[in-house]
Amino acid sequence: MRQSEYPIQELLLNRWSSRRMSDQPITQAELMSLFEAARWAPSSYNEQPWRFIYALPGDDCWQDYFNLLTENNQAWVSKAATLVVAVSKQFYERDHSANAAAGFDVGAAVENIALEAGARGLAFHVLGGIDYAKATEQVGLPEGYKVEVMLAIGHLRVDVSNEEPEKQTERKALAEIIAAKKFNF
Amino acid sequence: MRQSEYPIQELLLNRWSSRRMSDQPITQAELMSLFEAARWAPSSYNEQPWRFIYALPGDDCWQDYFNLLTENNQAWVSKAATLVVAVSKQFYERDHSANAAAGFDVGAAVENIALEAGARGLAFHVLGGIDYAKATEQVGLPEGYKVEVMLAIGHLRVDVSNEEPEKQTERKALAEIIAAKKFNF
Repeated sequence: MRQSEYPIQELLLNRWSSRRMSDQPITQAELMSLFEAARWAPSSYNEQPWRFIYALPGDDCWQDYFNLLTENNQAWVSKAATLVVAVSKQFYERDHSANAAAGFDVGAAVENIALEAGARGLAFHVLGGIDYAKATEQVGLPEGYKVEVMLAIGHLRVDVSNEEPEKQTERKALAEIIAAKKFNF
Repeated sequence: MRQSEYPIQELLLNRWSSRRMSDQPITQAELMSLFEAARWAPSSYNEQPWRFIYALPGDDCWQDYFNLLTENNQAWVSKAATLVVAVSKQFYERDHSANAAAGFDVGAAVENIALEAGARGLAFHVLGGIDYAKATEQVGLPEGYKVEVMLAIGHLRVDVSNEEPEKQTERKALAEIIAAKKFNF
């Protein structure tokens, strides 16, 4: 179990990025609840610049989505129940000016998905090791939209008696990420 | 009360961005729990590119922090219990290459702070209406670090009997932010 220096919500402390997926499908209702979580994130001028395009294992494009990933990722992602391309809208609807906060806001929305997945006992992993140019083409992004990351989501594999425990990532100490008044690291 | 199309965790649904702050201070323990929440966000290569520099109302630099905000924001931010400059480290520690995911990752960490604040009944608001050049100078950022946003956090004002309810922002329908297989909006 993770130990925090100061108490926080269990939902936040117990979220972790798992690669250990079974090939059990997720239901449409589960999938919709994950996207619903994203929907409620805050955003600059409430623009909600997040768009999510997803494939399921039975889809004709499943292999194409899969091929967007680096080989390292393909090994474990084959058991995912969905692959999602998370996209940011790079301009404001209000005045068509550039939205410099779009990536930041999609990061917040994706964290909501991660937390909802964690609360449901689903495995969730952000994928940065992707071919961005191919991903942009694959989902048919128009000008002004940008692929931020892909997401792999599936059911946690339960029978892991023959496997080593997944390595949990460490965190920097609080003193390494906060400072009073001035940048001082 | 907000209504979601599909069920999600209450913590996610009930988080909202409030400007309605009292001038009650927050304790050091509360403040540390907020930063602790950020600490546990996921990040590209677990680089944890988030840095938070904060000021409290008694600090000699409080007014300087306050002056980084646009006039619109200053009106209500005067009651905040802390102002935080959220910074991204724009290069990887592992090989000093550019970290294109840094802003996205800080977005995830800030969402964790927002959720922890919400769970504690604190008011939390992301501020994008700031003077970025002055903020960079104010906190003394070196090369390779970028101001993403500021955060205002305080206690929710309880006696609001003389005030209109705060307007709650709407959300796009799910169908406006998700698509199967191809971008289709």
